[in-house]
Amino acid sequence: MADHRFYSRMGPFTLGELANLINADLNNVEISGRTVTDVGPLNTASQEELSFLDNPKYISEFKNTDAGACIVSPKYASKAPARTALLISKDPYKAYALAARVFYPVIQPEPDISHSASVGKDVTIDKSSRIEAGAVIGDGAIIGKHCLISANVVIGASVKIGNHVVIRSNSTLSHCIIGDYAHIYPGVQIGQDGFGFHPDIEGHIKVPQLGRVIIGDNVEIGANSTIDRGSGPDTIIGNGCWIDNLVQIAHNVELGRGCVIAAQAGVSGSSKIGDFVFVAGQVGIVGHLSVGTGARIAGQSGVIKDVPPGAIMGGTPAVPIKDWHRQSIAMSRLIHKDKRINE
Amino acid sequence: MADHRFYSRMGPFTLGELANLINADLNNVEISGRTVTDVGPLNTASQEELSFLDNPKYISEFKNTDAGACIVSPKYASKAPARTALLISKDPYKAYALAARVFYPVIQPEPDISHSASVGKDVTIDKSSRIEAGAVIGDGAIIGKHCLISANVVIGASVKIGNHVVIRSNSTLSHCIIGDYAHIYPGVQIGQDGFGFHPDIEGHIKVPQLGRVIIGDNVEIGANSTIDRGSGPDTIIGNGCWIDNLVQIAHNVELGRGCVIAAQAGVSGSSKIGDFVFVAGQVGIVGHLSVGTGARIAGQSGVIKDVPPGAIMGGTPAVPIKDWHRQSIAMSRLIHKDKRINE
Amino acid sequence: MADHRFYSRMGPFTLGELANLINADLNNVEISGRTVTDVGPLNTASQEELSFLDNPKYISEFKNTDAGACIVSPKYASKAPARTALLISKDPYKAYALAARVFYPVIQPEPDISHSASVGKDVTIDKSSRIEAGAVIGDGAIIGKHCLISANVVIGASVKIGNHVVIRSNSTLSHCIIGDYAHIYPGVQIGQDGFGFHPDIEGHIKVPQLGRVIIGDNVEIGANSTIDRGSGPDTIIGNGCWIDNLVQIAHNVELGRGCVIAAQAGVSGSSKIGDFVFVAGQVGIVGHLSVGTGARIAGQSGVIKDVPPGAIMGGTPAVPIKDWHRQSIAMSRLIHKDKRINE
Repeated sequence: MADHRFYSRMGPFTLGELANLINADLNNVEISGRTVTDVGPLNTASQEELSFLDNPKYISEFKNTDAGACIVSPKYASKAPARTALLISKDPYKAYALAARVFYPVIQPEPDISHSASVGKDVTIDKSSRIEAGAVIGDGAIIGKHCLISANVVIGASVKIGNHVVIRSNSTLSHCIIGDYAHIYPGVQIGQDGFGFHPDIEGHIKVPQLGRVIIGDNVEIGANSTIDRGSGPDTIIGNGCWIDNLVQIAHNVELGRGCVIAAQAGVSGSSKIGDFVFVAGQVGIVGHLSVGTGARIAGQSGVIKDVPPGAIMGGTPAVPIKDWHRQSIAMSRLIHKDKRINE
Repeated sequence: MADHRFYSRMGPFTLGELANLINADLNNVEISGRTVTDVGPLNTASQEELSFLDNPKYISEFKNTDAGACIVSPKYASKAPARTALLISKDPYKAYALAARVFYPVIQPEPDISHSASVGKDVTIDKSSRIEAGAVIGDGAIIGKHCLISANVVIGASVKIGNHVVIRSNSTLSHCIIGDYAHIYPGVQIGQDGFGFHPDIEGHIKVPQLGRVIIGDNVEIGANSTIDRGSGPDTIIGNGCWIDNLVQIAHNVELGRGCVIAAQAGVSGSSKIGDFVFVAGQVGIVGHLSVGTGARIAGQSGVIKDVPPGAIMGGTPAVPIKDWHRQSIAMSRLIHKDKRINE
Repeated sequence: MADHRFYSRMGPFTLGELANLINADLNNVEISGRTVTDVGPLNTASQEELSFLDNPKYISEFKNTDAGACIVSPKYASKAPARTALLISKDPYKAYALAARVFYPVIQPEPDISHSASVGKDVTIDKSSRIEAGAVIGDGAIIGKHCLISANVVIGASVKIGNHVVIRSNSTLSHCIIGDYAHIYPGVQIGQDGFGFHPDIEGHIKVPQLGRVIIGDNVEIGANSTIDRGSGPDTIIGNGCWIDNLVQIAHNVELGRGCVIAAQAGVSGSSKIGDFVFVAGQVGIVGHLSVGTGARIAGQSGVIKDVPPGAIMGGTPAVPIKDWHRQSIAMSRLIHKDKRINE
């Protein structure tokens, strides 16, 4: 059960209502009037709560769950304990996401401009938006409808923010244009100068960074990530990209639609990433490359060449993932041969 | 000598007092009344200062030190210059830590609530605590005794903070409960949504993140680190954990007691780390794993399988450290063979 | 063309003036009176704009550019379209940097102390400097001439900042001394305690961190980077160092002059880095090492031994770069042999 100090819950809802809302099949229509009051993990959900099984790693928790109802794929339905009602879905994680959003819908911020916020000249803030304590909004900034600018956020001059945007505390935005429904987590730094200089023994010479950061709609940018503005071209984050914490996006990088960049990964300057590319944690992609649509890069890989669309890559330097697995096997064989020789 | 602009010093203390306080043996009891006024590094400490030798890499600095006194293990005592009094300890680094804390004890914050702090409704702040300028405390937050909430910190609604907690500037805390004597460094982001979504070509679907972050007693969390709240279960940092800078702890991760996580390491979602696990810098641990008590992971390793208790692992994918060393040797042999063939 | 909402431009300038200022040769003196109004990338610059070609990867964009003028090396001059005037330079990127700085010179901050800034006791702020909204300046701090302390920056007690220093929002500085012309990007944390403790099963014992951070002149420190103060010795960043985003510099590290540290790299405690060392992204350097002047470390490498001056290293553990390339080749050969055996 979610801690009521931090979360306010809707409901209860009947299993019938939920099955409808999440597009699942209830395993027993006779109980469609039974209610559940919350969602919860398999190992702690009570008879009044709804849980889910997605990752088969947790199947033993599923077998022993006390949850009153559970979202599950047809494949694992037979493993359920008898006391648990089943909401059967081909896509249990998606169905759970929708159910959890029924209990915990997104709450629109209450309109307000805190008296301790600092608002510059010629700023436009829609009257439905909320500016919290200590936030600083630069001259000429434009903030759309139903936005939440959290405490101590700093928004630079002329920044333009769309509608339904949430910006969490201690983030700084400058030289950028943000689409609708973007969610910027705390501590994110967007729009600062990229790492552009001419190396010189008499002192590196800074190259003025004259571009912007353009962030599309429905983008999430994780805590303490950094997105440098373009040097002349723009840095572009496409619609629907999800970026995790502590990620570095350098100047002039372009991400297509729906990319997923996991924590602590970095994309170097001017690389172009296609649509729906998945980049795992701690990956590094060097500059001036092209990574094709639908490519996937395994964790900690170092990408130093263009990646074709749909390729799955691993290792440093990154190679097709099957070759990377072969490398590990070859390596293991090699050292075991050495061990036998030593014996 | 520590810069008096930044540090205020106690003392002087006699060598006899110090030997007592740090549980060391003075090499010459006749000088137990001699005083030292400060601690300092081997290569800069003066005749009035106390230094220490811990890492044998610095033995030549030890031989040439001008320090008036030095903490050293019995093993290296004979290498000391004659002018240097010795405080002999089996554990010189620990003894130095205790001595330095005698000269530079932890200073309790002076109670105050800055007039430029923003304090929400129904907030409880113990009268012994200090809230600095620009800090923002959300509704219903509870702050214990002798806490320091530094300038421009943001604390979300209902967050509960124990006693003797220090939170440094530009950190953001939400959806969390913090134990006693925790030290949160600047720029730390705790309690934001984890990276939970259902990937979908029509737009990734966010999964509401409904858990908390629970941080135990005596925990240190380094600058600009990020700790996401649980998705339903909590993210848990056990008592006595030390986390360095720029570390990523994903949702639902559990760290046992006394874990040490070095800079730029990352632990992915739902992994369970036992007690006293040491994770070196830039390590990545993938999600849904178990790392046993007392395990150690070498720098930059990528852990993709469960790690048994006490194991020492290295490489990507991580293998037992001896095998990792064998891999390096095999690799070196292989390329030298290639070189000979080329010649 | 740079977005006029974010950038204010000087000019126009004649090609003759520019050739002079950037030390380039105009390919046709008869057009030295022709003006350009801005700088821009090859693929978007108009007939009224100046572009540049530096990286030969972009030569096809150069051949097709509409730019009115272009800075180019003698080598590629013949590839230019006829309509484009050429400013020929042996060092086109440097020349472009200088030209861009003519159009977009550094703007001195307008002197001001925001009424919502908090300034402690005995603070010295030169009257030419600017302190923005929500900034907090601790007791005894000293801020030189023409500095910009941006919104919500926190500067600790007794910190000393030179002239022409820019500190971006949501950064925290304590226990440090900053030289002239330093540029601290947003979210940077400088001067917090290093990761110094004695590991102990009964609770790790904190070692008081009693040093400072000393930052030289003309240093750039990228967004969300962290620089811990020394434990007793100081942490030192030499003149002219360029540090990218999300970089970790541990306690007691010393960087020489002109070092370049790319994003997400980390240098562990007490390592000494010589002058003009280039460290690529996501590199890790372990503690207590020495890296010689002019050394270069390839991306994601793990340096675990001293590096001689001028060496170029790659891999984990890092080896001379040629050996690292040989490792990749040997590995590739090995798995192809395995593949043939399987066939």
